[in-house]
Amino acid sequence: MAYVTWSLETLEKFCADVFETFGFSKEESGKISDVLLTADLFGIESHGMQRMVRYHKGIEKGQIHLDAKPEVVFETPVSAVIDGHSGMGQLIGIYAMEKAIEKAETTGVGIVSVRESNHYGIAGYYSEMASKRGLIGFSCTNSEAIMVPTFSRKAMIGSNPIAVSVPADPYPFLFDASTTVVTRGKLEMYNKMGKPLPDGWALDENGTPCNEAPRVLANIVGKNGGGIMPLGGSSETSGSHKGYGYGMIAELFSSILSMGVTSNECCTFPDKTGICHGFAAINPAAFGDAEAIKKHFSEYLKALRENDLAEGADRIYTHGEKEVFAEQDRRENGIPVNDGTMVELLDLCDYLKLDFASYFPGYEPPAEFAGFAGNY
Amino acid sequence: MAYVTWSLETLEKFCADVFETFGFSKEESGKISDVLLTADLFGIESHGMQRMVRYHKGIEKGQIHLDAKPEVVFETPVSAVIDGHSGMGQLIGIYAMEKAIEKAETTGVGIVSVRESNHYGIAGYYSEMASKRGLIGFSCTNSEAIMVPTFSRKAMIGSNPIAVSVPADPYPFLFDASTTVVTRGKLEMYNKMGKPLPDGWALDENGTPCNEAPRVLANIVGKNGGGIMPLGGSSETSGSHKGYGYGMIAELFSSILSMGVTSNECCTFPDKTGICHGFAAINPAAFGDAEAIKKHFSEYLKALRENDLAEGADRIYTHGEKEVFAEQDRRENGIPVNDGTMVELLDLCDYLKLDFASYFPGYEPPAEFAGFAGNY
Repeated sequence: MAYVTWSLETLEKFCADVFETFGFSKEESGKISDVLLTADLFGIESHGMQRMVRYHKGIEKGQIHLDAKPEVVFETPVSAVIDGHSGMGQLIGIYAMEKAIEKAETTGVGIVSVRESNHYGIAGYYSEMASKRGLIGFSCTNSEAIMVPTFSRKAMIGSNPIAVSVPADPYPFLFDASTTVVTRGKLEMYNKMGKPLPDGWALDENGTPCNEAPRVLANIVGKNGGGIMPLGGSSETSGSHKGYGYGMIAELFSSILSMGVTSNECCTFPDKTGICHGFAAINPAAFGDAEAIKKHFSEYLKALRENDLAEGADRIYTHGEKEVFAEQDRRENGIPVNDGTMVELLDLCDYLKLDFASYFPGYEPPAEFAGFAGNY
Repeated sequence: MAYVTWSLETLEKFCADVFETFGFSKEESGKISDVLLTADLFGIESHGMQRMVRYHKGIEKGQIHLDAKPEVVFETPVSAVIDGHSGMGQLIGIYAMEKAIEKAETTGVGIVSVRESNHYGIAGYYSEMASKRGLIGFSCTNSEAIMVPTFSRKAMIGSNPIAVSVPADPYPFLFDASTTVVTRGKLEMYNKMGKPLPDGWALDENGTPCNEAPRVLANIVGKNGGGIMPLGGSSETSGSHKGYGYGMIAELFSSILSMGVTSNECCTFPDKTGICHGFAAINPAAFGDAEAIKKHFSEYLKALRENDLAEGADRIYTHGEKEVFAEQDRRENGIPVNDGTMVELLDLCDYLKLDFASYFPGYEPPAEFAGFAGNY
């Protein structure tokens, strides 16, 4: 698939206009766009512009309620439970993380569990909100079941990512990873390339390891069983019960503490997805000298990066470095968007009566997409 | 290796006497014994009686300071930093977790970071202290470096287990796992059996995957490079960066927040190990109706256990079930101890002038161990 590159400003203007046209306020549209485009800046294409159509469909189907406002339904100085009333996930996520940050700045810790939300984009966006304020940030979410627990044949847990951000120099530590070995997006990529799936990724409808991407994806869509393995693969020998356990921890902070919908039932309702999130912020100052702690951590990260290289490796990363480098590059050289996504945006403009050419002058979909444009 | 089975009471009496003879008080000896024997009850032999010799050596070498008392060096209503002054890890761990529980019962959350401790046994012991009180419990520790971070050839992170316990019916959720794919004990087991290591476990001195247990173990002992892979193996395809990330999270709560010694330097000092721990307790009542939350979680765990079985599997476990079953069995039928450990205990009795036969009447080491007994 070919890519065309646009400046961050171009994409920001476009995204904000799209969400305003859906009916969100200017401020809300800016927030949603920021979450989406941060993913694109980080090089996490699957969670950026490419998701706009999914959000649009969620609004159309009535699973995302445009006017819903998140409501605090329980609160203590260190904790809160928020009902998202099925609003836009990004707006609920930002609201909830701000609440966690406020508490951490006051009491040292804030833990916020959210029910009745929607897909909120990259988990790392929210944890980084905290680290930008000098705090340690956590964020996790449940999602439509796709992880098949050890010894099972049916998915019961979402991709359930966990993100942790910690202030450090010269850039923060940012860990953001699904608790499945990979996400569905990776399977779709292998499917498009016609390549067999690597061992240790997916299970067929009988719960048996399977390398056939089309079969696994068809089963996922048809809810016929099978799905993606937990981090650690399908056997206890490689640690599958550990990935399964981390998936459960994400579930605990999202759907359990909030009394929300667990992954096995997420996205099975006509008028909501029921997706839940968990957020936390911890103030390092609650443990002493925050600057000294930051320096101590930064030195350890440096030692990790400067460690002896494995044969054949050319550098060692600490978590979040790849995102920092991608963001620097993309702010300077633009953000690549693939033709498939461009055609979706063209259709979206058709639907919303926005002038595609005014945002993306000169763009023509390649011939292979001729049949798709206008069929949104 | 053959096993001989003893009642819990027999082992409790023996352990407590050994630690009292070392110089710990009756109360302290009881606490240490309880941590060790809980591991044996759970079927985690590597962290039970088998460790007594290592603790003894730590005391002899002067890395474990018998008279040290843990000291709170920084504190807020939701947090504390404790300096263990290189005392016995189990005593420091229990002290720190009690502090976290006390805070969680008062404010809703307690996070405690500990520096200058020693090996504390199974991480899950401490998290379970919280779940026995109706709280969510966390515990993690760093340790001597054994995990080789992605793209490296030298171990920089410990096995760094993370444990999470959550109240549930009919028994609590108890996740307790190293963030390496396996622990060193597993490599030693394969070595004893003369079996090649499974793929995805270990790296040689060049940072290249290696199935030879003797080579990897010799490298670990000689600090020649290589070691154990993070959960997720050695490549990003199988998620190695994720296990590496979880190892870092354990490091954050143990050595970073406490300004302690990071894994890469743990156990390199003559007079201490420098091992650090992290503990947290969260009160579910800070999120609403604790009983309703427990019921909600228990129902999800039940659904997971009753999920469709993978082909060839005969049951699905939720975390902590295996430990519950092992404990029931061992309380009823006794705890199996292997001959290698029995011979070590015989030697320990020799050294401490304790009457081995009064604890373990009729036990004779098998012929193969004839040369070992008395050589402690």
